[in-house]
Amino acid sequence: MDRLRRFPEQGVTDRDALDALLDSQWAGVLSCVADGLPLAVPMLYARDGDRLLLHGSTGAGALRQVAAGAPAVLTVFALDALVVAPTTFESSVNYRSATVRGPLETLGAGARAAALDVFSEVLVPGRTGEVRRPNRKELAATLALSLPIRPDGWLLKVADDWPATPAEADADDDVWSGVVPVRTVLAPPVPAPWAADLPVPPSVLGLRRPDDA
Amino acid sequence: MDRLRRFPEQGVTDRDALDALLDSQWAGVLSCVADGLPLAVPMLYARDGDRLLLHGSTGAGALRQVAAGAPAVLTVFALDALVVAPTTFESSVNYRSATVRGPLETLGAGARAAALDVFSEVLVPGRTGEVRRPNRKELAATLALSLPIRPDGWLLKVADDWPATPAEADADDDVWSGVVPVRTVLAPPVPAPWAADLPVPPSVLGLRRPDDA
Repeated sequence: MDRLRRFPEQGVTDRDALDALLDSQWAGVLSCVADGLPLAVPMLYARDGDRLLLHGSTGAGALRQVAAGAPAVLTVFALDALVVAPTTFESSVNYRSATVRGPLETLGAGARAAALDVFSEVLVPGRTGEVRRPNRKELAATLALSLPIRPDGWLLKVADDWPATPAEADADDDVWSGVVPVRTVLAPPVPAPWAADLPVPPSVLGLRRPDDA
Repeated sequence: MDRLRRFPEQGVTDRDALDALLDSQWAGVLSCVADGLPLAVPMLYARDGDRLLLHGSTGAGALRQVAAGAPAVLTVFALDALVVAPTTFESSVNYRSATVRGPLETLGAGARAAALDVFSEVLVPGRTGEVRRPNRKELAATLALSLPIRPDGWLLKVADDWPATPAEADADDDVWSGVVPVRTVLAPPVPAPWAADLPVPPSVLGLRRPDDA
């Protein structure tokens, strides 16, 4: 926040900026069309290079819809700050938002096991080395989907700006304005009641968020 | 997190629980259908009793679409904790998610000014008393929409649970499991460069999040 250059809301074509947003969040909203109506469901995802992995139960209705090749779009956003301007009209938020368009690909039995390991490793790095692997029954119950990040398949919008100046907002010079940063942080791990006497494993100790102090 | 009762993912019909989620977040994803394809855009919203207020520029394409009466759904979610189970298959997240179905109503000139004041007061309580009101030109440039929360128009899903037990997960007893809570907090206000010598106003000093220490 120490820059003076202003960066009003705009489209951004920097793929690294897209990846930084995607890697900073755990979940987005998957939107598709069912019987002509909008259908939306929050979904965990994990970025694996040029694709986003999604998963769910084979019984989940919305997932089956998109797995069947319906057009879909995943929306991910981060609200980075409240922007308190010299007028309510000019007040807004700093944010980053991305949409990644489908269709999604359903992963077959062979690719599924590896994809689910990647999914777990992105969310909790190191965890797959601490626990048993999914068995055949578990793999069969899981739908794994891949949403390719195609060069023409994503949009990123970013607003990272000071508020309008008093002159721009047609407001008095003595009205405070500024930003209030919003942070997402992890609290210390809480063991399950039956695990209170077990040491917290490296995978959990190593969990970090960009905003963690 | 000190309860031992387990609350696996389920639909919740408690309107207070819906309001608590909606009031804890600032933004959701508005999904609609455009030319048969899903269209999704993150939107700020403010709950005002039995309606959600949304706003934007009269020039915004997606907004005009839903303002014209297209079916729409707003999805709001909070990711409350990572749930680290004794297997990756059983690992998940605790979360709350709501969908509120449209159509949205476009507010006319008379209702718009009041709705925008409410919008501002929900996001930054007290701010409308510290700054000048929107003028006629600003009001004319703003589209204000209302999404009624009808009794049959919303769905709430909540998962707030410990991980599966080692027995349930068919895992060894000595594998740690538990939850890692995710918190959204506000950092101290940062004045705009031209406001560094002004006192931070009561509205900004009073901003709180449910997770703030």
